[in-house]
Amino acid sequence: MIAKTPQAPYYAVIFSTLRTDIDKGYLEAAERMEELAKQQKGYLGIESVRNELGITVSYWDSLEAILKWKNNVEHTAVRGQGRAVWYKKYQLRICKVERDYGFEKEE
Amino acid sequence: MIAKTPQAPYYAVIFSTLRTDIDKGYLEAAERMEELAKQQKGYLGIESVRNELGITVSYWDSLEAILKWKNNVEHTAVRGQGRAVWYKKYQLRICKVERDYGFEKEE
Repeated sequence: MIAKTPQAPYYAVIFSTLRTDIDKGYLEAAERMEELAKQQKGYLGIESVRNELGITVSYWDSLEAILKWKNNVEHTAVRGQGRAVWYKKYQLRICKVERDYGFEKEE
Repeated sequence: MIAKTPQAPYYAVIFSTLRTDIDKGYLEAAERMEELAKQQKGYLGIESVRNELGITVSYWDSLEAILKWKNNVEHTAVRGQGRAVWYKKYQLRICKVERDYGFEKEE
């Protein structure tokens, strides 16, 4: 559930969202987008949580990979539906991960 | 709930966590850290969601501000408790936000 990313630097897309109350088609589309993202060149991993606020962070090996994913035809169509139907508000931030640190408790 | 951040570039700290089943002191510490972060120079905002996975993203105006916050005495002590007690696993990623886009539905 925590993405196993390589040594920095790499890229992250932070997608912070507030939903409308219209659920129709949302879950299917979200699952399909995650499945499709995983097939893209340069995809490194994804972390996603939702309560009232949703945060999905996807990780990529380059800005080019992010741009290609943005321009994917199916993804573009679903983004249009997102703005029209599922999302009340969102912010999308494209970031360069410069350093990272991990911790795991010994059992 | 979605942070109102300034025009990029600025910085983000993505803190992805898996908790132990020990709740004692956790919520109070998390709230205190959020309150303390807000008082730091260079703090821009925070977004936080938890289900099984937790993702907290804090935003900062510089790497220097992040480093100062990391070295804050109270924050350092609480991080030690976090590793000892509350977190099974975490990943902390320090990022430069290079571009961002917002969407808000017209009412």
